[in-house]
Amino acid sequence: MATYEDIVNLALRRGLFFPTSEIYADYPAGFFDFGPYGAAIKRKVVDVWRNALVQKEDFLEIDGALTMPASVFKASGHLDSFNDPITKCKKCGAVYRADQLLTEITKRDFKEAMSESVLTKALRDNHIVCQNKKCKGLLSDVEKSSLMVKIIANVGKSDLYLRPETCQNIFLDFARLYKTMRIKLPKGISQAGLAYRNEISPRQTLLRSVEFMQMESEVFFNPKEINNIDNWDAVKDYEVMLQRAKEKKASPIKCKDLVSKKIVSGKLIAYYLARTQQLYEVYGLKKENMRFRELDDEERAFYAKEAFDFDVKTSLGWLELIANNYRTDYDLKGHMKASKQDMQVIDDKTNKKFIPHVWEISIGTNRTFYAILENAFKKDKDRVFLSLHPNLAPLHAGIFPLLSNKEDLVKKAKEIYNELKVCYEVMFDKSGSIGKRYARLDEIGVPLCITVDFDSLKNNDVTIRDRDTAEQKRVKIKDLRDILYKLLMGASFKEL
Amino acid sequence: MATYEDIVNLALRRGLFFPTSEIYADYPAGFFDFGPYGAAIKRKVVDVWRNALVQKEDFLEIDGALTMPASVFKASGHLDSFNDPITKCKKCGAVYRADQLLTEITKRDFKEAMSESVLTKALRDNHIVCQNKKCKGLLSDVEKSSLMVKIIANVGKSDLYLRPETCQNIFLDFARLYKTMRIKLPKGISQAGLAYRNEISPRQTLLRSVEFMQMESEVFFNPKEINNIDNWDAVKDYEVMLQRAKEKKASPIKCKDLVSKKIVSGKLIAYYLARTQQLYEVYGLKKENMRFRELDDEERAFYAKEAFDFDVKTSLGWLELIANNYRTDYDLKGHMKASKQDMQVIDDKTNKKFIPHVWEISIGTNRTFYAILENAFKKDKDRVFLSLHPNLAPLHAGIFPLLSNKEDLVKKAKEIYNELKVCYEVMFDKSGSIGKRYARLDEIGVPLCITVDFDSLKNNDVTIRDRDTAEQKRVKIKDLRDILYKLLMGASFKEL
Repeated sequence: MATYEDIVNLALRRGLFFPTSEIYADYPAGFFDFGPYGAAIKRKVVDVWRNALVQKEDFLEIDGALTMPASVFKASGHLDSFNDPITKCKKCGAVYRADQLLTEITKRDFKEAMSESVLTKALRDNHIVCQNKKCKGLLSDVEKSSLMVKIIANVGKSDLYLRPETCQNIFLDFARLYKTMRIKLPKGISQAGLAYRNEISPRQTLLRSVEFMQMESEVFFNPKEINNIDNWDAVKDYEVMLQRAKEKKASPIKCKDLVSKKIVSGKLIAYYLARTQQLYEVYGLKKENMRFRELDDEERAFYAKEAFDFDVKTSLGWLELIANNYRTDYDLKGHMKASKQDMQVIDDKTNKKFIPHVWEISIGTNRTFYAILENAFKKDKDRVFLSLHPNLAPLHAGIFPLLSNKEDLVKKAKEIYNELKVCYEVMFDKSGSIGKRYARLDEIGVPLCITVDFDSLKNNDVTIRDRDTAEQKRVKIKDLRDILYKLLMGASFKEL
Repeated sequence: MATYEDIVNLALRRGLFFPTSEIYADYPAGFFDFGPYGAAIKRKVVDVWRNALVQKEDFLEIDGALTMPASVFKASGHLDSFNDPITKCKKCGAVYRADQLLTEITKRDFKEAMSESVLTKALRDNHIVCQNKKCKGLLSDVEKSSLMVKIIANVGKSDLYLRPETCQNIFLDFARLYKTMRIKLPKGISQAGLAYRNEISPRQTLLRSVEFMQMESEVFFNPKEINNIDNWDAVKDYEVMLQRAKEKKASPIKCKDLVSKKIVSGKLIAYYLARTQQLYEVYGLKKENMRFRELDDEERAFYAKEAFDFDVKTSLGWLELIANNYRTDYDLKGHMKASKQDMQVIDDKTNKKFIPHVWEISIGTNRTFYAILENAFKKDKDRVFLSLHPNLAPLHAGIFPLLSNKEDLVKKAKEIYNELKVCYEVMFDKSGSIGKRYARLDEIGVPLCITVDFDSLKNNDVTIRDRDTAEQKRVKIKDLRDILYKLLMGASFKEL
């Protein structure tokens, strides 16, 4: 099994991701650049989400500004309630996330949502001091530190902030979209984009950064119609992995039982839990490595009536990738009150106005990217490869002349490259031994390598090699287009 | 011909784009949200760029952080030189862009790059005062206002800024990418993403906003090899539209003549001018509506040795969409000096180290999006439609039952919808008259409408209708997949 270090080493070695501005001593923690292969994989993570969730579910996708004024976040509650609990060393000034510090030292699970007094008491009870061994100063009482990132610009009448979650654009735009897009409920509105959290101590690279990407969907619905969902039959017997708030372990449960046992408020919620888990099956993760963890009162965000974290098993333990929240009418109601903009819609049956309720599927893109990489990372004897689905691979194939100094081989390989390039993402490589060229593409998850040798010139065929098994086949050059197409459609190398 | 107002009205009516946080009184000028159709078109503008320029030219594409520390922008020159000339009313405090104010009032062309003293003198010579009619106060001498947007976060040892151009990530990452991506020069590195300019007076919606999207490519090359470019033959007789610095009008000139007449420093630059213009032909713009405008010493950015703005003719006059700059080794040299990171590469022929030179293709995505919309906007009698290439259309087709209250028509249309949805972006619409449904999709540029009527139930065929001509054809349902495919591959309705 891959470790966190395996992934970070691979990322640095092949430029998948690395700290932004790393050549400068003052580069900030918590911001990352994605190099070409990393950017391609991340883009495909988004594309798969768009195809498998947004478009399949007829959601609408918007692309909103990252910057919003103070009034938005006053109404959303973020300016008051979106904080981390911190404690400062009274001697050296070092700042710690109180919940993280407590979890690390006591090996018990402290949450950021716990109250300052609870966390302060825990610090005192455990006699925790500054972790700088030369300092060991006393720590302050736990206080709140805002997670909002402010920007300084010439425009606007009040303070401007970078959004802490992409969904606020969706709530703000709801009334306009309801009208201009002729929305009928239930309807999801989605957005993929950047968001910012003013972390005190960003860490574990992509897993807790200041700038990060989200893929969020907000499903607007009539709470009276929460059990009226098209396609219910498609999921009712599908099993999701559920860990109840009081339990220690996840176990499979059918969607219809989620409803009948009143674990969720209605079919709509069970339906989207199923669709969400199915997305991660498309990402290549195994069901036994997933769970929806029901959150208790202490853990839920301030706006959530019902909430399930979607976690995936990694070398670091269970990693939270998605927050699934029943936000009720909290957001629309808050913005309606503060902005005086009417956010109500009309109930077709009763002709009465109401504020829609919201089910949220808030996916952390960078964490999903990380979990996919770790899941795909394989070591096989002295070989390392990323077993990515072709839809997530940074390239579809590499094309190599067997020897780099034979002009006719190079020419033939270039021809094939130029032909395939019209429809596929391919690369041409003639440097180093064939073994090294295979290894370089294995490591970044390219599913096929195509090698042109002396027989190719006579027989118009090439060797294709499978990344996962290193198996090789001889195929006609004229069939390569179809072969790549089948592969992208999900065929395995054996079926080709 | 469409006007700016036509596009803004369409955008608001159909939610293509609109001011972010518009429901709040304190919403800032210069930030926009793209609704579903606008976001889809914008995404496709990026996809076409990626296919037609980045991938076709074997460029590498990265995805970097938006935030960077002060040291980066000290070295890049932005903290010192990236400013707007402003003048303030001494009475009421109103702030004006001096160059814009002068251009508006005198109808002569004042540039932001002009010196403060030149602009101050022009203000005085033209007796310009505060434009607020109730005020008419005296204006201050022209001073510089930084265009950099700062952010306030807990991390980092120095001030943090949002990038004013996406290319800085490319320069900063060059050394790592050169190694990890085994780069051979010439090689382009590209990035699509957001950038920020601290405008005093954002205006004309997407055309001068604070937050905007760029698609930038930096081509790194050995200046000694500027005339050594693969594929030169493919462009040498291709004509670009050129307006020399001293001329008033653009005229076509062959790429080989750009080189022989020493209008550009070498073939590499002529080659990329050609590729850039060809991209805009793919976007559906006509050559006679494009020009490369050579910039004189006064107009060039501080880092450019040679520069051509790429402009497109719109109802607002020539609109600058792209800055094409020969940045020489300015950026790598500056970052190398400031960071002490070696940015040199080895010349294969001489075995000597050198700092690569850079040709930049810096595309404004939002302006390109606007120019494409305006170019596609057509009025035909009482009909409005967007004549977008199918690759840029927000959806490929709409599927309609002729009558919404006939269950078998609705069922059949839904079946077709569900089948096509697997491969294409389609929408189902049953509300309103057929004419209204056509009009709604025409207006947002959907190339095909497919209508299911009573004959469809008997004959398994449907009516397809062309957006641009309103022409209709009868086709078999089983052929719809192929028809949509051909259309996406560029076939016209007549050829279907």
